[in-house]
Amino acid sequence: MSDLFLQACRREPVERPPVWMMRQAGRYLPEYRAVRKRADFLTMVGTPELAVEVTLQPVDLIGVDAAIIFSDILVVPQAMGMTLSVEDGVGPRFHHPLRAAGDFERLRDVAPEDGLGYVLDALRLARRELAGRVPLIGFAGAPWTLMAYMIEGGGSKSFSLAKRLLVEDPPRAHGLLGRLADAVGSFLVAQVEAGAQAVQLFDSWSGAVGPQDFREFVLPYLGRAARLARTAGAPVIVFAPGSGWALEEIAAETEADVLGIDWQTDAGDARRRIPPTRVALQGNLDPCWLYAPPAVIRERTHRMLDDFGGRGHIANLGHGILPDVPVSHAQAFVDAVQQWRAR
Amino acid sequence: MSDLFLQACRREPVERPPVWMMRQAGRYLPEYRAVRKRADFLTMVGTPELAVEVTLQPVDLIGVDAAIIFSDILVVPQAMGMTLSVEDGVGPRFHHPLRAAGDFERLRDVAPEDGLGYVLDALRLARRELAGRVPLIGFAGAPWTLMAYMIEGGGSKSFSLAKRLLVEDPPRAHGLLGRLADAVGSFLVAQVEAGAQAVQLFDSWSGAVGPQDFREFVLPYLGRAARLARTAGAPVIVFAPGSGWALEEIAAETEADVLGIDWQTDAGDARRRIPPTRVALQGNLDPCWLYAPPAVIRERTHRMLDDFGGRGHIANLGHGILPDVPVSHAQAFVDAVQQWRAR
Repeated sequence: MSDLFLQACRREPVERPPVWMMRQAGRYLPEYRAVRKRADFLTMVGTPELAVEVTLQPVDLIGVDAAIIFSDILVVPQAMGMTLSVEDGVGPRFHHPLRAAGDFERLRDVAPEDGLGYVLDALRLARRELAGRVPLIGFAGAPWTLMAYMIEGGGSKSFSLAKRLLVEDPPRAHGLLGRLADAVGSFLVAQVEAGAQAVQLFDSWSGAVGPQDFREFVLPYLGRAARLARTAGAPVIVFAPGSGWALEEIAAETEADVLGIDWQTDAGDARRRIPPTRVALQGNLDPCWLYAPPAVIRERTHRMLDDFGGRGHIANLGHGILPDVPVSHAQAFVDAVQQWRAR
Repeated sequence: MSDLFLQACRREPVERPPVWMMRQAGRYLPEYRAVRKRADFLTMVGTPELAVEVTLQPVDLIGVDAAIIFSDILVVPQAMGMTLSVEDGVGPRFHHPLRAAGDFERLRDVAPEDGLGYVLDALRLARRELAGRVPLIGFAGAPWTLMAYMIEGGGSKSFSLAKRLLVEDPPRAHGLLGRLADAVGSFLVAQVEAGAQAVQLFDSWSGAVGPQDFREFVLPYLGRAARLARTAGAPVIVFAPGSGWALEEIAAETEADVLGIDWQTDAGDARRRIPPTRVALQGNLDPCWLYAPPAVIRERTHRMLDDFGGRGHIANLGHGILPDVPVSHAQAFVDAVQQWRAR
């Protein structure tokens, strides 16, 4: 059993930082694409055996130091009653995005064991199949990001529909964000009870709002969900890409054990602002740098590790791995971390 | 003749900040949509009479304090030999994006009077028709942003093709960026000679790269283009949205008279970092805030003006105005600025 990842989450001294990659169970792996040929994305998410099969692939094939359960942040709105589809080349789409007041009122509250039992089953099965080789991470989407998807219906350039609600009807926005914070927080607690040894909150669209809206609509609910999740006793990782300016505020409000750092943020700068005695950091190699020749990947990964300084650091990319990255380049990244020693 | 805008560019004392809006000649105006019905986007850009008609609309209809010539940043790659189309709902597309070495070699160097004479004609005509009412702004896209479009073929979520070139073949990237810096810089000089009283460089995708790539591939060429443009004697505005962390470096490298501030950046923070004695700032109301009721627009605009402090500030949005904003809300923003007085 390698405890490296959990030790780093707790900022204990380690011989080298652990490494995993966001979206490591993903399309860059031929073995993932083989499973994906047999089942569509949502079937994979909804079938514990398939979800666990791809969850384990990067552990077996690349040797990462942690597994993250294969799932999707949009399972929570789906469990609240929204119809979701995920098509190749289009991405996730809600068939009936939230627009009128009635759309908001129709949403169900979610009891994790009820609407999201299949994710918990997948975690239980994954823990069994991992048999202690590496720790297992659970995750969920943060309230603002989920609400943005639920209103837009999918991804967006300006998120103008979701942001429009913030100025046109702030009470309605606060109402839904509060419900989502509680739903997400209890979902993460249930994930820990089902076997997740750490959980990550993804606030993928936190950068879509400016500082004032961030402090009113994003951070309080990210904090509420994270603090609720922490009651389960496992380390909580908070990743709010595009909001690197707010690291100090995010650390204070969420009481996170680990902050994810995006590739837009300078690693050394993040480390100076958030000392390893207070919070661990996770990140942050630019996923596009995995297109570089392996020797360059190795050199840039080592520079990043130097910048974070070793202690209280979990090596990762600064965003999800891209689907057309060669497996050998992902391997070069993981190898570079595992061969590094703090100087 | 109102000199307010040019005085603010030069950081001279003014009774109140001037105001204009990025994309102010745009689809939110019914009068613009009427012209657009008669001619497609590229015909409007390519026909000085039509370009000038829509350039003047926000001056006549909303009372902004500066006009910006109606054009597009992609006219430069187009003049270098690339075939462009702009379709409703799709956005700009190059038919043959740069991929193989030969695609880069085939690009022509541009002499502004030659390939871009129609933009210069539009500027001359606009100056004549404005008859001194408000100053006229010219503009161009910055080298990295143009190269990113030329490689991707259009907009992109991750800009992974353009960023891939930066790690796979840095010398080829530097070669094209240098050619673009010279093309753009001379184009802006020619615009000033044709009548532009200030020019703005848009590095719209500067936020698509992390700090290390920004310093190697973005900033040096943004600076080269800006410094070349400055030789014409008119104020140079540099707008690099998504790179608020680098304001000090951008100011130093570009020697810009004015820095554009995006809506992601806190106005007061930007002003503290860049004092009004050194560089003027332009921005930065979140365009989505124009969905708010006019009373809220007024209050937030006044707070923004307070945060910038009056001196050396040009009021603007922090990004282009959105097409579905009511005209009365755009008017509320402009009115709020024109009624404000520094306290």
